[in-house]
Amino acid sequence: MPLCEPAAEPAVDILRVSHVELGVSDIEASLAFYRDALGMVVSARDADEAVWLRGLEDASHHCLVLRRTQPGTCLGIGLRVRSEADLDRAAAHFAAVGTLEARLDGSERPRGQGPTVLVRDPFGVPLSLYHHQDTVARQLQNYDRYHGAAVQRLDHVNCFAAELQATHDYYTGVLGFRVSEYTETDEAQPRLWALWLHRKGNVHDVALTNGVGPRLHHVGMWVRGEMDVINACDVLAVTGFAGAIERGPGRHGISNAFFLYLRDPDGHRIELFTGDYRTMDPEFAPIRWSLDDPRRQTLWGQPAPKTWFDEGSDFSGVSVRQPVMPVRPQVAS
Amino acid sequence: MPLCEPAAEPAVDILRVSHVELGVSDIEASLAFYRDALGMVVSARDADEAVWLRGLEDASHHCLVLRRTQPGTCLGIGLRVRSEADLDRAAAHFAAVGTLEARLDGSERPRGQGPTVLVRDPFGVPLSLYHHQDTVARQLQNYDRYHGAAVQRLDHVNCFAAELQATHDYYTGVLGFRVSEYTETDEAQPRLWALWLHRKGNVHDVALTNGVGPRLHHVGMWVRGEMDVINACDVLAVTGFAGAIERGPGRHGISNAFFLYLRDPDGHRIELFTGDYRTMDPEFAPIRWSLDDPRRQTLWGQPAPKTWFDEGSDFSGVSVRQPVMPVRPQVAS
Amino acid sequence: MPLCEPAAEPAVDILRVSHVELGVSDIEASLAFYRDALGMVVSARDADEAVWLRGLEDASHHCLVLRRTQPGTCLGIGLRVRSEADLDRAAAHFAAVGTLEARLDGSERPRGQGPTVLVRDPFGVPLSLYHHQDTVARQLQNYDRYHGAAVQRLDHVNCFAAELQATHDYYTGVLGFRVSEYTETDEAQPRLWALWLHRKGNVHDVALTNGVGPRLHHVGMWVRGEMDVINACDVLAVTGFAGAIERGPGRHGISNAFFLYLRDPDGHRIELFTGDYRTMDPEFAPIRWSLDDPRRQTLWGQPAPKTWFDEGSDFSGVSVRQPVMPVRPQVAS
Amino acid sequence: MPLCEPAAEPAVDILRVSHVELGVSDIEASLAFYRDALGMVVSARDADEAVWLRGLEDASHHCLVLRRTQPGTCLGIGLRVRSEADLDRAAAHFAAVGTLEARLDGSERPRGQGPTVLVRDPFGVPLSLYHHQDTVARQLQNYDRYHGAAVQRLDHVNCFAAELQATHDYYTGVLGFRVSEYTETDEAQPRLWALWLHRKGNVHDVALTNGVGPRLHHVGMWVRGEMDVINACDVLAVTGFAGAIERGPGRHGISNAFFLYLRDPDGHRIELFTGDYRTMDPEFAPIRWSLDDPRRQTLWGQPAPKTWFDEGSDFSGVSVRQPVMPVRPQVAS
Repeated sequence: MPLCEPAAEPAVDILRVSHVELGVSDIEASLAFYRDALGMVVSARDADEAVWLRGLEDASHHCLVLRRTQPGTCLGIGLRVRSEADLDRAAAHFAAVGTLEARLDGSERPRGQGPTVLVRDPFGVPLSLYHHQDTVARQLQNYDRYHGAAVQRLDHVNCFAAELQATHDYYTGVLGFRVSEYTETDEAQPRLWALWLHRKGNVHDVALTNGVGPRLHHVGMWVRGEMDVINACDVLAVTGFAGAIERGPGRHGISNAFFLYLRDPDGHRIELFTGDYRTMDPEFAPIRWSLDDPRRQTLWGQPAPKTWFDEGSDFSGVSVRQPVMPVRPQVAS
Repeated sequence: MPLCEPAAEPAVDILRVSHVELGVSDIEASLAFYRDALGMVVSARDADEAVWLRGLEDASHHCLVLRRTQPGTCLGIGLRVRSEADLDRAAAHFAAVGTLEARLDGSERPRGQGPTVLVRDPFGVPLSLYHHQDTVARQLQNYDRYHGAAVQRLDHVNCFAAELQATHDYYTGVLGFRVSEYTETDEAQPRLWALWLHRKGNVHDVALTNGVGPRLHHVGMWVRGEMDVINACDVLAVTGFAGAIERGPGRHGISNAFFLYLRDPDGHRIELFTGDYRTMDPEFAPIRWSLDDPRRQTLWGQPAPKTWFDEGSDFSGVSVRQPVMPVRPQVAS
Repeated sequence: MPLCEPAAEPAVDILRVSHVELGVSDIEASLAFYRDALGMVVSARDADEAVWLRGLEDASHHCLVLRRTQPGTCLGIGLRVRSEADLDRAAAHFAAVGTLEARLDGSERPRGQGPTVLVRDPFGVPLSLYHHQDTVARQLQNYDRYHGAAVQRLDHVNCFAAELQATHDYYTGVLGFRVSEYTETDEAQPRLWALWLHRKGNVHDVALTNGVGPRLHHVGMWVRGEMDVINACDVLAVTGFAGAIERGPGRHGISNAFFLYLRDPDGHRIELFTGDYRTMDPEFAPIRWSLDDPRRQTLWGQPAPKTWFDEGSDFSGVSVRQPVMPVRPQVAS
Repeated sequence: MPLCEPAAEPAVDILRVSHVELGVSDIEASLAFYRDALGMVVSARDADEAVWLRGLEDASHHCLVLRRTQPGTCLGIGLRVRSEADLDRAAAHFAAVGTLEARLDGSERPRGQGPTVLVRDPFGVPLSLYHHQDTVARQLQNYDRYHGAAVQRLDHVNCFAAELQATHDYYTGVLGFRVSEYTETDEAQPRLWALWLHRKGNVHDVALTNGVGPRLHHVGMWVRGEMDVINACDVLAVTGFAGAIERGPGRHGISNAFFLYLRDPDGHRIELFTGDYRTMDPEFAPIRWSLDDPRRQTLWGQPAPKTWFDEGSDFSGVSVRQPVMPVRPQVAS
């Protein structure tokens, strides 16, 4: 049986995946995409070296950090923990297993963020654990500033994993993530092919797919509804970003979300995402999809381009491995 | 029988109602409303004296002219005629009946407009007849400029008329308008209470309602759909124009349109309007509504405020009269 | 200072407000409203005596129970607790304070529901505590069954409270609810006038307003977006329920939600609700509104009808009291 | 110069393209698509031999006729003329040029239709000219019957033409269609590659594209807005028609329309279409697109599948020819 129960006492009590840090080549070019076309809000900027962005509903400092270094690389994934005590507990755990990289406190703290513990998951993915961010002005009702996709907040990250079962065992068994949906093979001994895992009570905080990994597949940004996705397409098309549209709009079978996949100027993949469902009720049982069911990827039947299956952002400082199972994309023919 | 057939040979072959000229007190205040909140496009401006606006889809110079004179007064309604020959024919007709005010040609032509004939209808309403406007750049696909209500074009005007049957007889019998919908009393000899008249093939170019008149009740601006109306409400609310929302959003029984009524800074009433239907098929028969049917005003049953029944913009140079029938509004109790 | 921190160790660990039980006079008439016009799904029915309904995304048995008894009365509010152990702990607590009414186990359990503890809050409101419901088939992707409002799930309940500060103290201090937004007077010693309280991580599970209470003001049902609300209005209008529309559609300042208020055939008030925001981040601070701020009720400025301030559903077996503060509605004039 | 002015005195005064007649293999299978998934209304049915359908806003008898004969073949295109006199004039014209096939009068008239003249255009396309249809009950406000795509009416037909310049010369010069947009090569002597032609005042009644022809490329059905297209995708996906989605949803550069292309059970292509603009103003000038401009087909940059360029419905009784210019589709790679 490939799925296991989430840890009753996880090594760290994670509230949600809360931000992503990406390496880019040109802050201004990135802002033309994230701020001007996607409608995100700038919280802080460090000249041409870095910028901190948030969604329109965010009252916390950042859900996206862009740094002018290692373009096309993901520099880390941020995880909120429930309390400062949880942060200490997490630091102790990662120190014990030997993957604690640093504890940033006092003046070393990342900008806009409280004390932070930098660690690696067993596959090398850089995680940034912390309890709080600085409070900033929520823009939720500043409707005159809404434009483009009007991104509201970060919803999730999606990663390629080379060893999906092992990654599942770690994220559920150690970190306490809960499975909402999963894809497996139809073999006599089914093997996991993809996983949607959550802490915050909707479909996912993290999704994992069999592939050359670990790599970041995409960052999912929440938008208000289908019309903001359509508006985003129209705006992207006439502001030089028609080439940024990689897939969609469409409806995923898995998660039920309405989606659009974009590539930012450095190739990082961003999903505009809306319309999933709640998973917090105790009788919720993970939804199984067969790897051969064409509706899991898109309910409407449109194939994804080959790039969508092949390309992703490397994580900083990690070597990728070939996946345990061969990649079997269903692409446009 | 109160309705008559449209004139087979009207005095003037009108394409559509194409613009309105309004007296305002402060051009900048008006622009904050029409340009910034409603998303209209400025075609030309004459310092602080006048401004010419159009919708995002318009390739013609103006559908709204604002002049700093007689605030709260409607200075005229613009009607496109099919050809220059039609203009000559119209001028001859109005000269013959004694209500030709001027023919503006050469350097006297209104800005952005071809040769123009200024006349009065029998009730005193100032009409501006002309064949063409200057061509300007259509903004339809400049989606990065869309904001607020994203007004696309002018759809219609709606006026109070003191003598509704006579006004009907003139607009259908002389000007060739066709009736799409009408409200009448349930008396043994039914009397007309309101009329929707068109030339362009949807529900209306002109609507007429029994009331102190002639006065302009509102100008209907076409928007793309319900979501642009909702977005307009959100933007108006946070840009100082919450008080501008007079009625709606809602659905009219008559015309089937989704509507929102606003009052501009000088009190002129603007309707955001979308979702009516085509009326061009030869078997189309006017739709009758009983004056006592509550669904004609709003399908959803919400009452209109008293101002909506009482207030309107005077036409420049016309004295109003009491209506033939007593006004019987259905208002919020 | 009127607000207090949520209890670190609440008497019961509540996941969310999960269902409401309402007294009705005619099951068929109620189904015409909830099933046919609002698009809810019938999970079970006991002849003409009771019916259990859920939303399209629900995989749990019910979020609304209608019984043919005490029409117009609310028979109870259902609260999910985190574990069976929490249920035992809650029963012990309420027994100790003397407001445990019953523990329903084995064959006594309510239909579709696990072991259940019936209690009263200190103001007499009947609460139904339990850990799980039976699992039923999620209809989320059965798009051919969507119609009317296409209600997805229950979001919250809203109640009048006669002693708002005391009610606040109990729901936060004993039950562990967290404040997301609140209204207070501008007096030197401000007094609480209304509260939005949550457990599940969005704006609210319970809202409380100063008024003759305790009474149920409304049940908030989640819909996918603004277009489903508009579609609901159109369907209600032509299926005999135009009179059911009491207020809206509009945008609340508080919660940012897009809303529509309806009255069911027995007068129970139902809100269609969509578009609030997440409140789970640790730095989230409750949002204060002045009682005199007109935007808190509706961002767009439309007044509510008097019924909206005056009327509510009594709770079964409770006498109401006059509110501590005089009711000061802002109504249509 | 490839474009010419529309005929001042066309051979027939056409109001609009009003219906299409298609050969199908199974009436029930077609109804599952057109009635159940697209939401069209059945006006009449002749057992298993034929069915007449209309849109929700239509008060005329049919905009789509399906007959169990020659599956996958288009049996004819219906054109409304302005008056019965125009019908006589058209019959005389086509008799004179030798392409009058029949005049159907009295009991020979097509079901639901007035006197009808059957002719061929010079390329063999079967046209059905007539002035009126029977009036049926408009379903526009029967919102409880809306489902699926909720098709409102027919908007246009789109055809492959082997000799595009000659087809243009006929439709503008003889039939009086007006050009709204066109694609041409960038050669020193530009050649027409595609054309959008209208009579009714929006972007088109007929579009023509260089290709193996004459063949019907698609029938464009008008829907209320983007959300109805998205709803149609969701409903098609779960009612066995996921395979019917051929292209989209997306935004055309040409016409600005939001589109979705479907294939009916016999392979006929149907477009759901919404969001174009008015073309009736006299200063409207046709919009030119270069054949090499990737935005003309889709503003958002998504390629169309090869089938979209290659496949179409033959017209009954016509042999197709190879196009004058080689077909150069831009397809998914």
